[in-house]
Amino acid sequence: MTHKTDIEIARAASKRPILEIGDMLGIGADDLLPYGHDKAKVSQAFIDSTKSKPNGKLILVTAINPTPAGEGKTTTTVGLGDGLNAIGKKAMICIREASLGPNFGMKGGAAGGGYAQVVPMEEMNLHFTGDFHAITSAHSLLSAMIDNHVYWGNELDIDIRRVVWRRVVDMNDRALRQITASLGGVANGFPREAGFDITVASEVMACLCLATDLKDLERRLGNMIVAYRRDRTPVFARDIKADGAMTVLLKDAMQPNLVQTLENNPAFVHGGPFANIAHGCNSVIATTTALKLADYVVTEAGFGADLGAEKFMNIKCRKAGIAPDCVVLVATVRAMKMNGGIAKADLGDENVDAVKAGCANLGRHIGNVKSFGVPVVVAINHFTGDSDAEVQAVKDYVVSQGSEAIVSRHWADGSKGSADLATRVAEIADSGVSNFAPLYPDEMPLFQKMETIAKRIYHADEVLADAKIRNQLKDWEEQGYGHLPVCMAKTQYSFSTDPTLRGAPTGHSVPVREVRLSAGAGFVVAVCGDIMTMPGLPRVPSAENIRLNDAGEVEGLF
Amino acid sequence: MTHKTDIEIARAASKRPILEIGDMLGIGADDLLPYGHDKAKVSQAFIDSTKSKPNGKLILVTAINPTPAGEGKTTTTVGLGDGLNAIGKKAMICIREASLGPNFGMKGGAAGGGYAQVVPMEEMNLHFTGDFHAITSAHSLLSAMIDNHVYWGNELDIDIRRVVWRRVVDMNDRALRQITASLGGVANGFPREAGFDITVASEVMACLCLATDLKDLERRLGNMIVAYRRDRTPVFARDIKADGAMTVLLKDAMQPNLVQTLENNPAFVHGGPFANIAHGCNSVIATTTALKLADYVVTEAGFGADLGAEKFMNIKCRKAGIAPDCVVLVATVRAMKMNGGIAKADLGDENVDAVKAGCANLGRHIGNVKSFGVPVVVAINHFTGDSDAEVQAVKDYVVSQGSEAIVSRHWADGSKGSADLATRVAEIADSGVSNFAPLYPDEMPLFQKMETIAKRIYHADEVLADAKIRNQLKDWEEQGYGHLPVCMAKTQYSFSTDPTLRGAPTGHSVPVREVRLSAGAGFVVAVCGDIMTMPGLPRVPSAENIRLNDAGEVEGLF
Repeated sequence: MTHKTDIEIARAASKRPILEIGDMLGIGADDLLPYGHDKAKVSQAFIDSTKSKPNGKLILVTAINPTPAGEGKTTTTVGLGDGLNAIGKKAMICIREASLGPNFGMKGGAAGGGYAQVVPMEEMNLHFTGDFHAITSAHSLLSAMIDNHVYWGNELDIDIRRVVWRRVVDMNDRALRQITASLGGVANGFPREAGFDITVASEVMACLCLATDLKDLERRLGNMIVAYRRDRTPVFARDIKADGAMTVLLKDAMQPNLVQTLENNPAFVHGGPFANIAHGCNSVIATTTALKLADYVVTEAGFGADLGAEKFMNIKCRKAGIAPDCVVLVATVRAMKMNGGIAKADLGDENVDAVKAGCANLGRHIGNVKSFGVPVVVAINHFTGDSDAEVQAVKDYVVSQGSEAIVSRHWADGSKGSADLATRVAEIADSGVSNFAPLYPDEMPLFQKMETIAKRIYHADEVLADAKIRNQLKDWEEQGYGHLPVCMAKTQYSFSTDPTLRGAPTGHSVPVREVRLSAGAGFVVAVCGDIMTMPGLPRVPSAENIRLNDAGEVEGLF
Repeated sequence: MTHKTDIEIARAASKRPILEIGDMLGIGADDLLPYGHDKAKVSQAFIDSTKSKPNGKLILVTAINPTPAGEGKTTTTVGLGDGLNAIGKKAMICIREASLGPNFGMKGGAAGGGYAQVVPMEEMNLHFTGDFHAITSAHSLLSAMIDNHVYWGNELDIDIRRVVWRRVVDMNDRALRQITASLGGVANGFPREAGFDITVASEVMACLCLATDLKDLERRLGNMIVAYRRDRTPVFARDIKADGAMTVLLKDAMQPNLVQTLENNPAFVHGGPFANIAHGCNSVIATTTALKLADYVVTEAGFGADLGAEKFMNIKCRKAGIAPDCVVLVATVRAMKMNGGIAKADLGDENVDAVKAGCANLGRHIGNVKSFGVPVVVAINHFTGDSDAEVQAVKDYVVSQGSEAIVSRHWADGSKGSADLATRVAEIADSGVSNFAPLYPDEMPLFQKMETIAKRIYHADEVLADAKIRNQLKDWEEQGYGHLPVCMAKTQYSFSTDPTLRGAPTGHSVPVREVRLSAGAGFVVAVCGDIMTMPGLPRVPSAENIRLNDAGEVEGLF
């Protein structure tokens, strides 16, 4: 047992040169573009050279609905990856990149925790390899070109009241949520209402994360709708002729970033779309490349399984032509207790009854994942204070649901702690029992897709939407967008749209307030609640305490 | 002779691995942070380890007032650096980084041209090592923290009408020049007028380029004035507590970027402040580090010598405690002809009289540079069509001004073409004749500093400024800013404030429209004319034709 913090553990890591990590995967020095000594991008030429190789097994790590107790989904992803390598399997990890801006509001996060982390932790919370800056640049170029087009005569006849392309910045800046732009007279254009989102909410991010290569990226970028005319016909990014230059700005950002775990196993950290208005998974190119390089690829999806796993299956897997061989559902005794009604302050006290009462949330996720035809294992991410009786209560419950639960102690013990989990996951993945199918076919009408998710995943009674929204969906179907999957934007804290409703609610309604078409990324967003696409800073932002100390180390970021 | 374009030459370069270039300078692999195989940052530890070494000789390359004919200042800087290495001297080049945004309006520029270039050219016109993105991030963080401070109660009593800290983006986006921010109700803050500049105009950029190390950078950032209270007292970035986190965001950007010339000689490309509202030179840390690593350091300053060299001497040298050993003043036969009244279309025709008539501009710059106590050599950057008689006319004129002119053919012939220039420059630099002194002492009142520059460099009769401006300067003197140098923001095309007035005008007045205090960077800006800090895109932006071709090469950027 140790009492070191995540950052202390990360700083004490014995990192191997990234060229050696690449070498483990068969990537030669010429095909690795280093960023410092511990990060590198993999060349497109190398990626192309792997196309004919067979795929490894794909393992998705997802979780129950998040609680303030913390579930440790990324920690388990990393721990499982290390565990697989430790039992002699060739495994890789694929996770998302962190957004820079929010770290200056609340403290930044580790990629994992304890002895299951990906490093270099500080850089992954700062500029990393510049991918998000490239996305901001590409997005900003399109923004500038739209208003420039209007300025120089508006040949495309854009209705400036219907410009749907907002600007972005990778910073929590509430003052930019809603602005009036182009003020100051003739030289500055035509005044109009506008606003900024945070970079991770950009459709450019979603396009990059779903694109299979740079050609596909360019096509997706060109297909993005930026505005409408008075007659409601859409204006695309390709009409603005921004798609080529945006692709040039994104050519390096499109390449997966190779880093390593504390145990020197390879990890791709690449892409980071929002998990509500977008699909919340790392990039397709990272995952599909990893499947060529390793026998087992462990990846994760945002939030709980109702949002993250559902989108992983229905959007990412569908679009990328991949399928999970095993799903690991992360749960903790503490989170079960919170779902069972215990307050955060009281989580230290043993309470087997509360654990049992809180298991309903876990049970529903198990059933949901199985409904995709995929085998599921519950990983009980072990905390120091968990009692044996509490752990047993979770195990028993999971068995009663026709599944199995395995305790994993990767946080405290690294791969030694996750060996049992790794062994069982590898067995299941190798068994070939997975028979994956998405929840709905492409041909299903858009509204019915929303209903399918709401009823089968959220266990709601109905989806509510007014005529305007239903008509909008019909219009899109007529325009040829009916085959797209839907991307649900709702609270991550509940199966319902009420964040305070824990457990496994039934009988609720899912109101769709707004629908948005991400025609480049390739999905229709159903907004079911307040979705904040530009966070603000708290009263005392963490930035106030972030500084370099005399040793040149970053203080206050974690 | 060749007819290859700059980009064709650059792509055909035989680059050496950047680790080898570092090795030439005695920088070990551990002290070089690679960005790909052809760019690297130099560690602070290595820079610190060089402090006790003697300085090499410093050579400033400057030019006549720019004309549409092009002078080739950077080309000459690179050619001279290669020439010095070719004649057996150990030389380094220090130039500025390019801004990303403007390349999507007009085509991007090479760093040099012909056979005198720094590579990798494409990356230097795109994200390079991310320095400017880091500056944008640091700037944006402060912007967000200012409005956030007001939002949460405005303890510092900021007058929101007097927030002088504008936002920035590295994109030509005229729609953001003037905006109303914080609209949309209580949750988004207090509506106020605001606006964006392009990133290179950020005071953060000027601070980074003048800072001697990260501690000094943090101090400068903290000293920046972001707003005023109703009682007109300033609010500093340190009051907002943003200086520490901004320094963390800039810790890598502060390290010089090592690249190479076509002839595999080392070059630092680092920093790029505006040459009007800022001082227009590459970073102090790059120049002072290069002086420890090489016997000769060739650097340049923005625009013509009236702006660039003046600021190099009066701001950069003064602040960094360095002094040029020789100044190279770049002129071309074509530019002399344009100054002599010939239109661009007719520059191909031999016209010795026009060359002679146009030499007055050159003559004044020679005299100005000498007034700093520094020896000056004129480099005639040779163009293919220059006739011998025209070249001789320039040479004769320069001799009549008590200086000497040397023809340099680095564009066509690389270091072979610049050997004569390099030999002579090395002789002068080694001779110790330089007796540098800035034009005015720190103690001189601010307005008198402006008058000194206007009269001695621009040869104007007077500086005009209304009482409001003079009072503002007096207020700043009372607040302790009187010792700062002044930074003149005027047109680069003329000694006067009228861009159409070529040659060597006299009898003109210099109207100061506005003064700005860059308290962090450490200068007072005198705005003498329309200074655009946020460019717009042209009717047909170059972005429309930028794309990746099937070979994965960037097309349309150059």
